Amino acid sequence: MKGAVWASLAARNPAIRFLDVNLRGAGQVIFQDNPLSGALFLAAITVGSLRADAPEVIAGAVAGLVVSTLTALLLRADRDSLGQGVFGFNGVLVGVAAATFLESSAAMWLLTLVGAAASTVVMLAVSKALEAWKLPALTFPFVLTTWLVLLAAYAFEAVTIGPMAPPALVESAAAHPATGDVDLLPALLKAPAQVFLIDDSAAGVLVLLGLAVGALPAAAAAALGSAAALAVALALGTDPTATSAGLYGFSPVLTAVAVGCVFRKPSWRVAAYALFATVLTVIVQAALNTGLSPAGIPALTMPFVLVTWLFLLGDRETE
Amino acid sequence: MKGAVWASLAARNPAIRFLDVNLRGAGQVIFQDNPLSGALFLAAITVGSLRADAPEVIAGAVAGLVVSTLTALLLRADRDSLGQGVFGFNGVLVGVAAATFLESSAAMWLLTLVGAAASTVVMLAVSKALEAWKLPALTFPFVLTTWLVLLAAYAFEAVTIGPMAPPALVESAAAHPATGDVDLLPALLKAPAQVFLIDDSAAGVLVLLGLAVGALPAAAAAALGSAAALAVALALGTDPTATSAGLYGFSPVLTAVAVGCVFRKPSWRVAAYALFATVLTVIVQAALNTGLSPAGIPALTMPFVLVTWLFLLGDRETE
Amino acid sequence: MKGAVWASLAARNPAIRFLDVNLRGAGQVIFQDNPLSGALFLAAITVGSLRADAPEVIAGAVAGLVVSTLTALLLRADRDSLGQGVFGFNGVLVGVAAATFLESSAAMWLLTLVGAAASTVVMLAVSKALEAWKLPALTFPFVLTTWLVLLAAYAFEAVTIGPMAPPALVESAAAHPATGDVDLLPALLKAPAQVFLIDDSAAGVLVLLGLAVGALPAAAAAALGSAAALAVALALGTDPTATSAGLYGFSPVLTAVAVGCVFRKPSWRVAAYALFATVLTVIVQAALNTGLSPAGIPALTMPFVLVTWLFLLGDRETE
Repeated sequence: MKGAVWASLAARNPAIRFLDVNLRGAGQVIFQDNPLSGALFLAAITVGSLRADAPEVIAGAVAGLVVSTLTALLLRADRDSLGQGVFGFNGVLVGVAAATFLESSAAMWLLTLVGAAASTVVMLAVSKALEAWKLPALTFPFVLTTWLVLLAAYAFEAVTIGPMAPPALVESAAAHPATGDVDLLPALLKAPAQVFLIDDSAAGVLVLLGLAVGALPAAAAAALGSAAALAVALALGTDPTATSAGLYGFSPVLTAVAVGCVFRKPSWRVAAYALFATVLTVIVQAALNTGLSPAGIPALTMPFVLVTWLFLLGDRETE
Repeated sequence: MKGAVWASLAARNPAIRFLDVNLRGAGQVIFQDNPLSGALFLAAITVGSLRADAPEVIAGAVAGLVVSTLTALLLRADRDSLGQGVFGFNGVLVGVAAATFLESSAAMWLLTLVGAAASTVVMLAVSKALEAWKLPALTFPFVLTTWLVLLAAYAFEAVTIGPMAPPALVESAAAHPATGDVDLLPALLKAPAQVFLIDDSAAGVLVLLGLAVGALPAAAAAALGSAAALAVALALGTDPTATSAGLYGFSPVLTAVAVGCVFRKPSWRVAAYALFATVLTVIVQAALNTGLSPAGIPALTMPFVLVTWLFLLGDRETE
Repeated sequence: MKGAVWASLAARNPAIRFLDVNLRGAGQVIFQDNPLSGALFLAAITVGSLRADAPEVIAGAVAGLVVSTLTALLLRADRDSLGQGVFGFNGVLVGVAAATFLESSAAMWLLTLVGAAASTVVMLAVSKALEAWKLPALTFPFVLTTWLVLLAAYAFEAVTIGPMAPPALVESAAAHPATGDVDLLPALLKAPAQVFLIDDSAAGVLVLLGLAVGALPAAAAAALGSAAALAVALALGTDPTATSAGLYGFSPVLTAVAVGCVFRKPSWRVAAYALFATVLTVIVQAALNTGLSPAGIPALTMPFVLVTWLFLLGDRETE
């Protein structure tokens, strides 16, 4: 009912239509073509951002969202895709990531906005490249663009690196064990929030709520994915601080939602397949953390992208 | 004759059929859809494993083989491909590599078996992705899966890295020359064994025997490939210890067999093309050794995969 | 007129035809299927090479050019493409790069010539792989082959690394600012020369001349691309020494020519799109400088290749 009223408002008023497209863009970060989901995701970023005394993060999110959407308009992208927010979800993440890992400055914001605009070109390019395999681009445009922006930041005197681990050679965790225990509930709740790079349990609850509003099975898959990832992380002994912050859970959450209910019709068989994909995502997260360490950049959602692509391609039912 | 008896046994008895599929899986590591070749390859791993007092290596081989084959059954992979052992050869190598580079422990075996199962999904995905170019997956599923498993192992407290070179920045060999000479005969014989990560001349002879049983030209190509690779390694001055252990020869052996007789009908022209590919594989081996050093993982058979893909794609005769 | 005389000479005399093909090969480095452009580009390399007292660089260029072209003849590559110099431009760059970054020696020249020959196989392979997307190979065959050759060189005792930055972990430029100012005119003029790895303003003028002879819009795009890149480099604060040497400008020059006038019909819309691509190429240059630092190899023209592929794929007008 409310949905119908909103849709009719959006159809008549260009400003509300633009707002609608942007909210859907935020929603599409976890596959929700739904403005209310998007609003709740943005609320999660706002809560996490303000509670961490980092208002630049929500500013980056909104700026990235709007700039990437405007770029799609300028490039005359497909109207249907545009209306579903398909050109906003990478931009919002580019904005959040740049604002999180780099210190605010004029040059940093220039770099961020160029990156957000670029994410739309990358989205168009990657979508086209993957057409042959009927694969979705997922958040790969965000990952590629942000990796380039963050790597580049090291070379720019006008841009200061923020709380991002500098390039380093990895040492074996077994040889240098970390101390401390994993905080189980925060680990579970923060994973959905870390999809948006937010380290906050309340924000995680808002993200789950945003999913539930869009599609209950997605919310269930996200919660189960977070739990499965935590179990694997505990069994293999990942770093307790990172695990408690949900950093081994956010990519598995996305994998669980994507493989478990977005790109396949849910069934016991699909659930088992998605569970296996989710478990593997934890391992790939650990692998990319190691592999990217000498370059000084985080894995972002690449573990989700890689595993989901492999599992969608590898599933014969798709043929 | 014996082949016919075995085939008829396998057709009637499910246990023998399963054994047959697994032996063919071992054989397919070097393109032999032949249970006897597979048995000889497994014998090579066993000999090398036991003589090095490392029984976990043959255990890993068998576990990886069986788990990856069972995963293909569960995923209802194409029956014909399954029967030819196409879903076993990556698993056997994942098992050998994990058991070679990681210390045995419960978590390590969990990781290994998950990796072996994953190698089947990766095989299905990569084969599908490469269909457009009519390219074979080769051992890329093994390489990708094992890279991820080994990289991940650095991040897990429950998994201890074994005799694998830790992440390091490479120094120029010309500036820091190694001492010692290359042992020519071991270098030649160990190369075929190192396809299975086995550092043993007798095992190399068993591998060549396994090839000869499957296809004499393949055995000849392997032997010539090993010799050509050794000549290049000596000319350019690779590390004598690594060269003596066959580590600059195993990928070239695979390239020689693949480009020289599996995917092209042998001829003088094809032989020259395969020789050039084999020479290049030594250079790519050196390149990937350098490039992967900061990440702390070995090149595995990636030099073979990369060069063979390029040479199959680049050959106009294929059109 | 002169063109017609030359064409008729080339048609009748095999030696002149071979010279013509090789000159076109040099010309194709910046998309000029024109022997005079190629001659001017080779003149630029010669000038830069001799003024830097490094005659091995022009020797490498010519050797790489001839060997890669001969390899294409041996491999019976498509006659039309061959005649347009399509199999020479990667070889000329492989030869220049090897001679620039490695010290001359017998083993180094062996490696260089094998690399130049390999660049033709890679060109055939990459062109075929990209057919599905109607994308050109650009200089990717040069980049891939040279990366492999340079990485491999670290592992060979018989090959000494020359003036190439050894593997290192990057430190943030903001934390360790370089001293000195950017020399604006040299930065502008050297960028076109650095396409050929030449650090010389006069050579840059010859390159622009070679472009003007082939196609005036290409020369204009190159000059504007160099200026745009310099503005971005100054705004973000790249290393002044590298910027003054044109090292942040050569890939943008190529992007400007490719996106602005070679693969799209010039228009204001295309110009704006090409400008955006050119700006991004500076950022990708900085990113790859950081990302490749632990491996000890330069980015070469990969920033141009990556950005141009993305912008050609992402442009809906191409459909």
